[in-house]
Amino acid sequence: MNRGEFIAHATIIGAGAAVFQDKMILTGTKKQSPKARLAFIGVGMRGSGLLKEAVSQGHSDIVAISDINEIAINNAKQIIKDAGSGEPDYYLKENDFERIVTRDDVDAVIIATPWEWHLPMSLASLKAGKYTGCEVMAGLTVPQIWELVNLQEKTGTPYMMMENVCYRRDVMAVLNMARKHLFGDITYTECGYQHDLREVLFNDGQHMTGHGVEFGEKGINEAKWRTPHYVTNNGDMYPTHGVGPVSNMLNITRGNQFAQLVSMASPAIGLHQYIVENGGASHPNAKVKFKCGDVVTSLIKCVNGEVIKMTFDTCSPRPYSLGFRIQGSDGIWTEDTNGIYLQKHSPRAHQYEPAEKYFSEYDHPYWKKYGAKAESSGHGGMDYFIVREFVDCVINRKPFLMDVYDAAMWSVLRPLSERSIAKGSQPVLVPDFTRGKWKGRTPVFGLQDDFSI
Amino acid sequence: MNRGEFIAHATIIGAGAAVFQDKMILTGTKKQSPKARLAFIGVGMRGSGLLKEAVSQGHSDIVAISDINEIAINNAKQIIKDAGSGEPDYYLKENDFERIVTRDDVDAVIIATPWEWHLPMSLASLKAGKYTGCEVMAGLTVPQIWELVNLQEKTGTPYMMMENVCYRRDVMAVLNMARKHLFGDITYTECGYQHDLREVLFNDGQHMTGHGVEFGEKGINEAKWRTPHYVTNNGDMYPTHGVGPVSNMLNITRGNQFAQLVSMASPAIGLHQYIVENGGASHPNAKVKFKCGDVVTSLIKCVNGEVIKMTFDTCSPRPYSLGFRIQGSDGIWTEDTNGIYLQKHSPRAHQYEPAEKYFSEYDHPYWKKYGAKAESSGHGGMDYFIVREFVDCVINRKPFLMDVYDAAMWSVLRPLSERSIAKGSQPVLVPDFTRGKWKGRTPVFGLQDDFSI
Repeated sequence: MNRGEFIAHATIIGAGAAVFQDKMILTGTKKQSPKARLAFIGVGMRGSGLLKEAVSQGHSDIVAISDINEIAINNAKQIIKDAGSGEPDYYLKENDFERIVTRDDVDAVIIATPWEWHLPMSLASLKAGKYTGCEVMAGLTVPQIWELVNLQEKTGTPYMMMENVCYRRDVMAVLNMARKHLFGDITYTECGYQHDLREVLFNDGQHMTGHGVEFGEKGINEAKWRTPHYVTNNGDMYPTHGVGPVSNMLNITRGNQFAQLVSMASPAIGLHQYIVENGGASHPNAKVKFKCGDVVTSLIKCVNGEVIKMTFDTCSPRPYSLGFRIQGSDGIWTEDTNGIYLQKHSPRAHQYEPAEKYFSEYDHPYWKKYGAKAESSGHGGMDYFIVREFVDCVINRKPFLMDVYDAAMWSVLRPLSERSIAKGSQPVLVPDFTRGKWKGRTPVFGLQDDFSI
Repeated sequence: MNRGEFIAHATIIGAGAAVFQDKMILTGTKKQSPKARLAFIGVGMRGSGLLKEAVSQGHSDIVAISDINEIAINNAKQIIKDAGSGEPDYYLKENDFERIVTRDDVDAVIIATPWEWHLPMSLASLKAGKYTGCEVMAGLTVPQIWELVNLQEKTGTPYMMMENVCYRRDVMAVLNMARKHLFGDITYTECGYQHDLREVLFNDGQHMTGHGVEFGEKGINEAKWRTPHYVTNNGDMYPTHGVGPVSNMLNITRGNQFAQLVSMASPAIGLHQYIVENGGASHPNAKVKFKCGDVVTSLIKCVNGEVIKMTFDTCSPRPYSLGFRIQGSDGIWTEDTNGIYLQKHSPRAHQYEPAEKYFSEYDHPYWKKYGAKAESSGHGGMDYFIVREFVDCVINRKPFLMDVYDAAMWSVLRPLSERSIAKGSQPVLVPDFTRGKWKGRTPVFGLQDDFSI
């Protein structure tokens, strides 16, 4: 199907329209244009990294770039200039995204904006019939996420949440091993986002990290938009980097599903202490009462019985770790020990082997082929693969391997954890955003040997 | 106070009596007899280890030994013979413990029997006014544990649950560090009992481990008495090795208290699979439906806000680890990384240092003085210290440092986790066995520089 046919099939409705007359038809056949024509909405810390990937991989033309921050726009211009790419149009106004997504020369939109903007921008992009890639999370509330799923189903336009950790080399190797049943039946997993963000959550309005204790209006970058959530919310604010990879291993939305969740929060001490120690007890922000517990722990029960323990820990002094553990009836991977033990393979009972041995043996074909190239790119190579996969699907009009249901299930854990904590750690049921389709869907992520581009 | 005075103060009532006319008075003054006169009830795998310690340390006379298993009795006789100790009386009948605890020449009783017997034997010993040391757990149900606490309060007789991991070298060093506020305000901890017990949970009725898939009546040792619990119960069956040490660091029963708990269980796969793989699918035990999830995870909220994540994992192939983590507002210890990071001390931000560095620096005085001697004893030295502390308190008529309230709080997590799981992971309130006394009690465990014996 070439682009002309595609437009004939899918009646594209502009942002704000409520009626969809046809669904986008995905054929998987090669698109005429050899390149994906991309629009970037948001090119801050995160978006500029994805932009660099897209530009350097050479399968994309960047036709539009939007950010309300001039520094970000100038940085993006430099990226484009350094790459010698064709000149995109630049947009600086908050609502410019509505104009961008309706441009006829845009095939796909990549959204990397503050959390609150993910939903409205994704909705606009889907309504405009554009392949949509959105940074984590898909939405912040249960109704928001239903709105996204409903619209995606109505339009049939592919939506992907850009959960890059699913492409981490060890994670893909372990997924590979899990599919070969090397861990046996998986019973229990651990994951999380354990990343001391305090130097990012505060700054002086000029330096991005390491200076000052301002946030919100007086902060820049993440201190500006991320930190206020810690004042108003108490829950796992950032579940997807941990639970995404684990969900692929547990076949969530594809033969399995989350059933219920319970969360518990520790006291909120870290951010206040950081302000006092770095800005003084008399700094106005020392009066701010942060609501989010320093460590939020959630237990998720799956329909097939497995339990996931998920941690959100961003305000404590600790080395970075997503804390993966995969426990099955035949073996275990524990990230923090860097060890794998498989009872039918490991030479010594009750003793880990270096995980690296298995990571090499079960290295994913993507990493085997492109690992050297990828490792020089963003986030240790994960960004290389997620951008390439995204662009591959856009060019070849294929559905995404991680789709709106994955995005919905992973993202909804945030508002549900807040709800459980607010109710004194009562268990809460997880909505089934697939409406039962998880029973018939089969795994697709990570089963490919190579890209088509 | 010599023994004569002690008896004059405390009207000792035999087993079964319901009225207590006076409480045991503890003065901490030196007892006349230079040795503790001990009775051992249960000298199987665990009790014989404690017996060896008591005998080899030389501060005890063993006056009575009881076990219903002749092999265990013969083994105990050998221990006594090897040590050249005075000959104790041996008892072989199930109810002999009632006669033993009332013997006038017994100062203290150590109970190391199957779980079900801990409560009745402890009650009998307390009623008889004997210093009582009982293996974990103190009781299996909430009413049982109340019965123990009530009786201990009525009699005033010291009771100690022999939670030996509290004496582990690294655990005592970390407790030391926690008390020096090196981790800052502790917000979150992890602990558990992660020990692949499958080869212990099944045997052939002859070899203790590694042969056969029998349990219950056809098994011996732990396969005989421990495994049936996995058929009837679903919960954290063995919480104290993890939560005991962490409770000392969080000052549970002494300024802090557990408030509520929620538990979630994975599917029960490991034991069935073990039977099928080692005994064949047609073995009668392959039909047994095990109830206890392979991995049971509990979240415990403390009155002061801290959260404890506790894991029970004994049916999965995995290397042993109690999985300790102590996270505070100034740093972290993670057992599985063998690392400590303290933001005010560690040279490199976001990077662990080898924990050993701090373990040496903050080594507990007990371990500094007696480490070399202890390490050759049971369980890496923990048993050396717990037996010595126990005997020290007996000889010098001192209260135990871990007392009935600690025993009660740690043990009750078992029935509460079962209750939470049975209710679909509803949070359950933890009874305050101190009846508010936790507010006025101050920490005592691990504050001593040396023993008095």
